Amino acid sequence: VSRGGALGSGPEFDRIRGFLRDLAAAPGVRVGPGDDAAVLDDGTVLSTDLSVEGVHFRLDWISPVDAGRRAAAAALSDLAAMAARPVGLLASVAAPPPGTLADALMEGVREAAEAAGAPLLGGDLTRAPTGGPSLVDVVVVGRTSRPLLRSGARPGDRLWVTGRLGAAAAAVEAWARGEEPDPAAARAFRDPRPRIAEARWIRDRLGATAGLDLSDGIGGDAGHLAAASGVGVELDGDALLALAHRTGAPADDDRAALDRALHGGEDYELLVALPESLVPSGVEEFRRRFDLSLSPVGRVVPDPGVRLRPPGGGDLVPLRRGGWDHFAPGAGAESSP
Amino acid sequence: VSRGGALGSGPEFDRIRGFLRDLAAAPGVRVGPGDDAAVLDDGTVLSTDLSVEGVHFRLDWISPVDAGRRAAAAALSDLAAMAARPVGLLASVAAPPPGTLADALMEGVREAAEAAGAPLLGGDLTRAPTGGPSLVDVVVVGRTSRPLLRSGARPGDRLWVTGRLGAAAAAVEAWARGEEPDPAAARAFRDPRPRIAEARWIRDRLGATAGLDLSDGIGGDAGHLAAASGVGVELDGDALLALAHRTGAPADDDRAALDRALHGGEDYELLVALPESLVPSGVEEFRRRFDLSLSPVGRVVPDPGVRLRPPGGGDLVPLRRGGWDHFAPGAGAESSP
Repeated sequence: VSRGGALGSGPEFDRIRGFLRDLAAAPGVRVGPGDDAAVLDDGTVLSTDLSVEGVHFRLDWISPVDAGRRAAAAALSDLAAMAARPVGLLASVAAPPPGTLADALMEGVREAAEAAGAPLLGGDLTRAPTGGPSLVDVVVVGRTSRPLLRSGARPGDRLWVTGRLGAAAAAVEAWARGEEPDPAAARAFRDPRPRIAEARWIRDRLGATAGLDLSDGIGGDAGHLAAASGVGVELDGDALLALAHRTGAPADDDRAALDRALHGGEDYELLVALPESLVPSGVEEFRRRFDLSLSPVGRVVPDPGVRLRPPGGGDLVPLRRGGWDHFAPGAGAESSP
Repeated sequence: VSRGGALGSGPEFDRIRGFLRDLAAAPGVRVGPGDDAAVLDDGTVLSTDLSVEGVHFRLDWISPVDAGRRAAAAALSDLAAMAARPVGLLASVAAPPPGTLADALMEGVREAAEAAGAPLLGGDLTRAPTGGPSLVDVVVVGRTSRPLLRSGARPGDRLWVTGRLGAAAAAVEAWARGEEPDPAAARAFRDPRPRIAEARWIRDRLGATAGLDLSDGIGGDAGHLAAASGVGVELDGDALLALAHRTGAPADDDRAALDRALHGGEDYELLVALPESLVPSGVEEFRRRFDLSLSPVGRVVPDPGVRLRPPGGGDLVPLRRGGWDHFAPGAGAESSP
């Protein structure tokens, strides 16, 4: 649910987010709010994702249809994170008059819902105050008898990630500089693809022990997986650099690309822990079936925390929020909670 | 879901709301978005309700905790409308920094959730742009094997309503004039009570054939029930006047009180159709058990539309949107869709 990146939800709210995470599981609730979605006893999966103009999207960067589609895709990605089958979604939209903007936002939601095979079950639609930001709140409903949780990773497991990393962040960086992003980056931001079928296949065929979707950047999200599983994680800088989006700009070096891959956020790819004994042919079959890469990026270790093996080798360094090479003591909080 | 009143969602959006209402029922969906909530094949009930500052609430009128409580109560009232048992809710909150406002809004949501015995299953929390409105979007999840629908009322059934009508509208009118509302009106607006247990009791013990919660005022909502059931409705002006909130102000006459009861909105009481053969002792038992009135206010007839028998008697007059006595042809749309 939480999302980082150049556009972000704001650290002021970390305390209340902590309260939401810590909600005690209630009767009838199998998985509480600490994971990507709540799971009820009967396998119903629920998650909500709020996108506010000026915070999560800007309408001088993308169209209202894009904004609606992204908002719904972000929520649907929480179903992918749980390896759940989509049942449907509900969308609340607010926009200043006239209704054309609200209409376009809802159209984007419908597009993402249709692409995921998830019917729109209902919604609410209201005007926002004139000049006020538009917004889209999407609730997704899914089903699974075996949710893929953040907990469950064991030392010795390998970490794998689908697709490429950092393209959405590259788009935001370009727009923030007043430039047009490269086409692949713009596409990644405008039309993220929740990995719904992919997640169920990985759980069922590759025996994933834990997983989540990458909304905050793999640096932070690997920390969430590690903390929930009571383990640590070592990320392979060379592997991440090979998956990192390249803008093609002359000034865009390895460091910038790796930083976006680690901390850019909103990739909506999957990060999963797979057993060490994984059969390579399974990975090959995944790639053929989904026309999508599935790449090893690190391993699960007993020691808590997230550490990075820098590109080119060298000693493991603790990964800290806001940068992978801030060595100064106290320079930042560990990215694992 | 839709709400009228002095604060309202805006007619600009009626077209898109119509689209939401007309969504075809998808596989696995028992009741589509045309009712107060969607019902899945397994009896899961879902509804969403968005409250935006400056549109649905004003923080110079009520506290942020009140605003959060009201938003959650409005959503929970959709579960009451379906006679569903609450399973839980998800709340998305946005507010400008610092986090204290978001915290208070979420606290109000928690209060309403606790009062309804519905655990908070999850949520999302984000900053709104500085100066931007705060907002609360609440999704409720419930269960029922026998949803109380808007359809099902038959000619000959009587219409009954819980509690009193028009108090929330009286509060809004007072605040809009820069005055403090009378205490009962302020309380009705700040702390509406979704009639969750009441609705299930009425369905199970009194054999309700149709029902909904009053969010737009009984004039409009009776039209929704009539249209969904393919019948007409005659409302009894004397009965409504007896239930109408009185502000106690010298200028507050019968006409003003009846107008608020008919069109004020946000009462969150129940309007139900009960069989003509209803046993009076059942109604008495309801009143004792819930310490709440249950009053006859009209009857179901074959002819479509909503008609009012004016207080003191006289001919039935068609009820039109925006007023119960606008006789001029074409002065307004019929309040039934």
